Amino acid sequence: MLDAERGAVIALDVGGTKIAGAVLKPEGRMLATGQLPTPAADGAAAVLDAMARLVDELRAQSAVPVAGVGLGVAGVIDPATARVLSATDTIAGWGGTDLAGGLRERTGLAARAVNDVHAHGLGEARYGAGAHAGNVLLLAVGTGVGGSHVIGGRAQYGAHRVAGHMGHIDSPLAAGLACSCGRTGHVEAIASGPGIHRHYLRLGGDRQVADTRQVAARAADGDERAVEALRTGARAAGLAAGSLANALDPELVIITGGMAGAGEIWWNALREGFADSAIDALRGTSLVPAQLGTAAAFYGAASLFWKEEGKDA
Amino acid sequence: MLDAERGAVIALDVGGTKIAGAVLKPEGRMLATGQLPTPAADGAAAVLDAMARLVDELRAQSAVPVAGVGLGVAGVIDPATARVLSATDTIAGWGGTDLAGGLRERTGLAARAVNDVHAHGLGEARYGAGAHAGNVLLLAVGTGVGGSHVIGGRAQYGAHRVAGHMGHIDSPLAAGLACSCGRTGHVEAIASGPGIHRHYLRLGGDRQVADTRQVAARAADGDERAVEALRTGARAAGLAAGSLANALDPELVIITGGMAGAGEIWWNALREGFADSAIDALRGTSLVPAQLGTAAAFYGAASLFWKEEGKDA
Repeated sequence: MLDAERGAVIALDVGGTKIAGAVLKPEGRMLATGQLPTPAADGAAAVLDAMARLVDELRAQSAVPVAGVGLGVAGVIDPATARVLSATDTIAGWGGTDLAGGLRERTGLAARAVNDVHAHGLGEARYGAGAHAGNVLLLAVGTGVGGSHVIGGRAQYGAHRVAGHMGHIDSPLAAGLACSCGRTGHVEAIASGPGIHRHYLRLGGDRQVADTRQVAARAADGDERAVEALRTGARAAGLAAGSLANALDPELVIITGGMAGAGEIWWNALREGFADSAIDALRGTSLVPAQLGTAAAFYGAASLFWKEEGKDA
Repeated sequence: MLDAERGAVIALDVGGTKIAGAVLKPEGRMLATGQLPTPAADGAAAVLDAMARLVDELRAQSAVPVAGVGLGVAGVIDPATARVLSATDTIAGWGGTDLAGGLRERTGLAARAVNDVHAHGLGEARYGAGAHAGNVLLLAVGTGVGGSHVIGGRAQYGAHRVAGHMGHIDSPLAAGLACSCGRTGHVEAIASGPGIHRHYLRLGGDRQVADTRQVAARAADGDERAVEALRTGARAAGLAAGSLANALDPELVIITGGMAGAGEIWWNALREGFADSAIDALRGTSLVPAQLGTAAAFYGAASLFWKEEGKDA
């Protein structure tokens, strides 16, 4: 390991709508943060330009030596090469992008990258709710449903680097519902925010309710259809977490994403679902909220430069 | 590693009804085999006595230096200590048994142990259908449904050593059906052999048909209810394999267990189910039959003494 690698790292969380960044020191201190809109329609080179601009801004703000740029990036990412293997059309021409080469050219810095959900998982597992656990299942329930299985501080990327599609396991509560992946019946179709909103409308809910946040607000006010949609989504996520626990046997299940902030109705139904699917040996497994919020992706991405300091063997 | 550990190993596959054993050389040659009934009702000491008797017989037959005894054992096994952490009542008083101590006392040999399904997974992943794959999902569909996820030649045992309960993930085709674990709706309830037989009877099938083998025979003869029960079970197993692939992203899915021998009707429905749940990136993942049959558990258990020769890092 180079000594420089123990220095500060600039972490970027690159999504389809914004690029968020932070400068982190290995002991966990955050020196500066910033963000820019993602010029998604303008293509990969424009997005790399924006990423480099944010890197330069953060570097100027923090005024410390920087060891490199750690990236959590939407799409299928190869951690070995920091390339985008494939991606949806959210960012035009994103598939195939050489993130390390593009950033080195523009900033002179080395870059390492993982998928954004794995960055989140690494951050929570290494520095957040999983800091004392050796085997962590992270489930992110928000606009989509995804996850990461982190064993001994290492995220499991899978043979084609697409492991962690936890939203795409079958749910008994999603039978016949269309999923974003083109299949039907996956848990994301009922448990994601948009899935809960659609279910509320299917139940005959108020058409004025425009999104999941409003469904949750209505549920808190006692709207029965809103309660049912919220509970069904949370129960489906809980059943999926229990099913995955039976297969993977994690020490801890960390729940993150927008729905994790939906309150007690959601959490109670999630825990009931988990207990109804987990086998006896695993029913007592802790389900805990993530601790780092959106900063988890920064810590996870930055830790790609610090991994010997984590729990890696 | 001791030189002795490169020698022959006696492998035992210890189940509730029989103890099967073999002497294996590291290059894969099987020198002798044997089996005994499991004196399950007589308790752990009697079962250890029977295991030691089989070890002595195999040792006498093969007449080679033996490095140790590798065990694939029913129940929750701690590979680090070769103890039975917990078990069902199939073998009286099996939970808590010190397998390594009990065998050393009786045979003078060192013993290492894993759960029988993980032994199977290790064997197939290291020496069978997965010999050239780095990330293998093994799904065993028989009297029960179980599995093992083998990454880089290492079976994943999980935080409580119960990982691999792949039969206990929710299936949309098992809604409301009682599972052996006490929950409802798990894939084992519809995809296991007994699950298929029960489904055949629920569909109004011939009450003279006494078991799954006969259901499969009737299906081959065109009995529509038998075809439906067989296809439903296979489809459920395929959907579960696809769901698990989305979460784990294996290079290869190996199918083993009694149902894997049920013929084309079963395999076609399995493959259709897999394709209906796997995301685009994984639909092309190979589903292949296991190659080693019941010998897989011998190879996997014996390899506990040879692991540096496998794909372990």
